[in-house]
Amino acid sequence: MDKLIKDILKQAPAIKVNGSLWLESDGTHFFGPGPVELLEGIAETGSISEAAKKMRMSYKKAWELVNTLNAQSVNPVVIPRTGGEKGGGSTLTDEALELIKYHRLLRQRFATFLAEETEKLKK
Amino acid sequence: MDKLIKDILKQAPAIKVNGSLWLESDGTHFFGPGPVELLEGIAETGSISEAAKKMRMSYKKAWELVNTLNAQSVNPVVIPRTGGEKGGGSTLTDEALELIKYHRLLRQRFATFLAEETEKLKK
Repeated sequence: MDKLIKDILKQAPAIKVNGSLWLESDGTHFFGPGPVELLEGIAETGSISEAAKKMRMSYKKAWELVNTLNAQSVNPVVIPRTGGEKGGGSTLTDEALELIKYHRLLRQRFATFLAEETEKLKK
Repeated sequence: MDKLIKDILKQAPAIKVNGSLWLESDGTHFFGPGPVELLEGIAETGSISEAAKKMRMSYKKAWELVNTLNAQSVNPVVIPRTGGEKGGGSTLTDEALELIKYHRLLRQRFATFLAEETEKLKK
């Protein structure tokens, strides 16, 4: 008879099935949790540099992500506004908000999958 | 009306939802694809060093994985046999085979999840 995983592994009650998820195209990852968090930060603060700071991401890296996302989208998802009195005021397009929403739902479905798998381990 | 992801991203037809999966306990990852591939290699070759070589993993790293897996299991999953004429002959216990089987099924379910999510992107 098959042994159950919970009888094989010592710390079975504490074990979780976990994972990460991303979109990729031709093997290149994009649009994982990092870019999405950046978009959310820009939506919240209106500023690429503020959003980067919140994530402890370098300004350079944040710009790279924004440029990559814009390059991969039919229409730009972030409209950067540099300079000006307050030195910023970047806005997200509707497409960016749609991507954020999609990602949130995708992560919810993934969380459900992981929770179900974690439950199965205990049975 | 909501825009569809396939209308937002340029390379939508080539985009895949992909991810990775592992078991963790108290934040420590274990039993991801690496350890499982090692177990499968040991099952096949009867040798930790041969299994490590196939994966281009160092012998030291392979032993660390074996020791970690054994420590996390109620009973050892690998019975190492060092030395001897052929310098090896490590065997897997039934528990190890059960872990391999579990992992294979888990990955199949994950592959199904990813394929469904990838399909959703195109709609």
